[in-house]
Amino acid sequence: MSDPALPFPRNIVEAVVAEHGVAPGRASIREMNRIVNAIEARLGARFIRMEFGIPGLEPHPLAIEAEREALAVRRLGGVYPPFDGLPELKNAAKGFAKAFLDLPIPAECAIPTEGAMHGCFISIGIASFRFRDRDTFLFLDPGFPVNKLQCKVWGVRTESIDLYDHRGPKLIAALEERLATGRIGGIMYSSPNNPSWVCLKESELAGIGALCTKHRVIAVEDLAYFGMDFREEYGDPGIPPYQPTVARYTDQWILVISSSKIFSYAGQRVAVSIVSPALFEERCPALAARFGTDRLGHAFVHGGIYPTTAGVVASAQVGLAALLNAVVEGKFRFTDPLREYERRAQAMKAAFLKNGFRLVYDNDLGEPLADGFYFTVAYGDLDGSRLLDELLCYGVSAIALAGTGSIREEGIRACVSLTSLDMMPELRRRLEAFHRDHA
Amino acid sequence: MSDPALPFPRNIVEAVVAEHGVAPGRASIREMNRIVNAIEARLGARFIRMEFGIPGLEPHPLAIEAEREALAVRRLGGVYPPFDGLPELKNAAKGFAKAFLDLPIPAECAIPTEGAMHGCFISIGIASFRFRDRDTFLFLDPGFPVNKLQCKVWGVRTESIDLYDHRGPKLIAALEERLATGRIGGIMYSSPNNPSWVCLKESELAGIGALCTKHRVIAVEDLAYFGMDFREEYGDPGIPPYQPTVARYTDQWILVISSSKIFSYAGQRVAVSIVSPALFEERCPALAARFGTDRLGHAFVHGGIYPTTAGVVASAQVGLAALLNAVVEGKFRFTDPLREYERRAQAMKAAFLKNGFRLVYDNDLGEPLADGFYFTVAYGDLDGSRLLDELLCYGVSAIALAGTGSIREEGIRACVSLTSLDMMPELRRRLEAFHRDHA
Repeated sequence: MSDPALPFPRNIVEAVVAEHGVAPGRASIREMNRIVNAIEARLGARFIRMEFGIPGLEPHPLAIEAEREALAVRRLGGVYPPFDGLPELKNAAKGFAKAFLDLPIPAECAIPTEGAMHGCFISIGIASFRFRDRDTFLFLDPGFPVNKLQCKVWGVRTESIDLYDHRGPKLIAALEERLATGRIGGIMYSSPNNPSWVCLKESELAGIGALCTKHRVIAVEDLAYFGMDFREEYGDPGIPPYQPTVARYTDQWILVISSSKIFSYAGQRVAVSIVSPALFEERCPALAARFGTDRLGHAFVHGGIYPTTAGVVASAQVGLAALLNAVVEGKFRFTDPLREYERRAQAMKAAFLKNGFRLVYDNDLGEPLADGFYFTVAYGDLDGSRLLDELLCYGVSAIALAGTGSIREEGIRACVSLTSLDMMPELRRRLEAFHRDHA
Repeated sequence: MSDPALPFPRNIVEAVVAEHGVAPGRASIREMNRIVNAIEARLGARFIRMEFGIPGLEPHPLAIEAEREALAVRRLGGVYPPFDGLPELKNAAKGFAKAFLDLPIPAECAIPTEGAMHGCFISIGIASFRFRDRDTFLFLDPGFPVNKLQCKVWGVRTESIDLYDHRGPKLIAALEERLATGRIGGIMYSSPNNPSWVCLKESELAGIGALCTKHRVIAVEDLAYFGMDFREEYGDPGIPPYQPTVARYTDQWILVISSSKIFSYAGQRVAVSIVSPALFEERCPALAARFGTDRLGHAFVHGGIYPTTAGVVASAQVGLAALLNAVVEGKFRFTDPLREYERRAQAMKAAFLKNGFRLVYDNDLGEPLADGFYFTVAYGDLDGSRLLDELLCYGVSAIALAGTGSIREEGIRACVSLTSLDMMPELRRRLEAFHRDHA
């Protein structure tokens, strides 16, 4: 990485931003990506890119080999996959749930999806049309903005509770108030949380679970960052501690398990949703109007998977099955390569904190946060938008926290995945220059 | 294939059907599939299976090799694909549209989807929410039942016009009457038609196009059976005749191009939708409420692809691009292997007609139908349901025509894809036995 003079020429940065017609503080991840690409091209300089939450590692060769064999030897490319998934992936997911969540489920309840996005999309629909008059979906924010777009596509309203000022008993009390209205069909959160990296405690999951049972609301648990609370080791099959989950506290859940981050397998769009066995068997007359069947598990497959994609790419199902089986059998520990993100987050957070920044979401009910894929920072009294404008002039890109549904205006979300450890000296140099000019 | 005694023991067939709790006349394709699997297992006999519209050929090795390289060499498995598709597939689709439809389009308008199902799903949403108060989607029936399920998922009403008694000017007059109501947002049909194999004439496409322009209704043209009207040769790049399309007569279209039938590539769930360049640029304020943007092309990608699957499997995009490029460059003619279906249809239709059956949809505006992937037959005064019950006892399976939205109660849909030419003597033997017992 070159060491350009800092700050970059402000007039050029501002001109490129203006050409894109969107303020950095309002830019989506992809828009920010395009703006930064354009500045890089104009200046011939590289950014420290923290805007994009993409995996920075390579998929395991086991998956690639399994896909090749599925196509070249087993010839699965010419055959429609079953809508409810290839049995080998369903069984592998069953094994994974037992080994890493200590959750016994029938293979039937594990449904392959075209990426976790697909699982979230269908889950939101199922939760929202399960009963009449549940016209609203609730998020524990901040979160992934596209989940709110999914609600819009379904024609479902959204509400949110912010984890910034709602943790522990306060979170549960706020949740009770919302669920008691009767308008909420489902609730979604990720833990570790994108973007704040707060992790819900067992007591919080227990509270959420009890309320979901009481009000018959589906908890859609987005496990995109499975095992990535690195304060614990969740990567040993059949050995506690297990990844925390609401599934221990209620039968009203759908778990969405992504392969993009834990296996860096984002390109092949394959994931698994696990529907609670109790929900899977439930009969919900209201579902039939949208999904063509009143059986909830059947609705997920025949009203969800079938009309959207008619099943999941055959070779990728075989690839993911190979990965899940390998980690269940202890052939490799999926958390080992991921700890690279922990090391990066430690180094990056230290560089920010040393140069006048502070964490926005800064503790887990009093405990220090884990180091992982994302963190949130603010500087002085700059709001997120102003902070981004300034950081762009120092070759550092991120997205505004406000775009993630956070109530906090002052911060940005930083992703560690594209900043390797050898880039840390340059990150420090840039943040020092920034701090020198703004202190 | 063994030559079992005919008819099969009726009490056993009826017992297995009863165990499945669904009458054959009402069974979906998949349900019929399960019933027939169970009868085969119970009797130890094989059926002539005409219920399943799956490709019966092998994908071209070019695609498999391209996928392998995409994963093992180019390492695309670890990288999110662009939501609007890999440029190489967009460009290949542009070349395909020019070579086989004589349709010049910018690559931007060609959008990869997770199978044609995904393209139909998003297209129905776009057409239905483009303007307020267009709460109904219109089908030219008979058709693929899952498209109607897609409307249900979107919360959109459906209507249909049957091609049985509406062809030529009568079709156009009926269409005018429906579109004039102002409640129709889009219209969908496949040509060749699943299941009747009627093919719309240029005069009909011209009439549909003119009405779509007049009433600003989107024609969603399902080209699942591209080039498979074998009365013409549509497989020579850049040489007329070209696959007929409504796109020659209006700018209100989305073409859905599947790879499942023309390339027997069903397992990898990859297809391309082409949005009319005029529509692509259109600004529709009503769209924003569902898709988060008022630009129609952007809505397809960022409100359609992104929240449902976040893009299309990387390796399969590379595989399909390789196939499209190969046929555009004339490396092989995609229609050549497909003519196997024509040969099968000729033999099968002859066997049915010789044994007292008649075609239900039996002509194209006076011309004989093409021989292709599907055909429809009836026998005497048996309704479709009764006919299926009887045929099951003679080891022949299909689905009832009524399940495809047809107004005709008397017929069944037969798919040729699983009946190879060496099975024709056995098919004839079974139909002769059936006719002997029912004449």
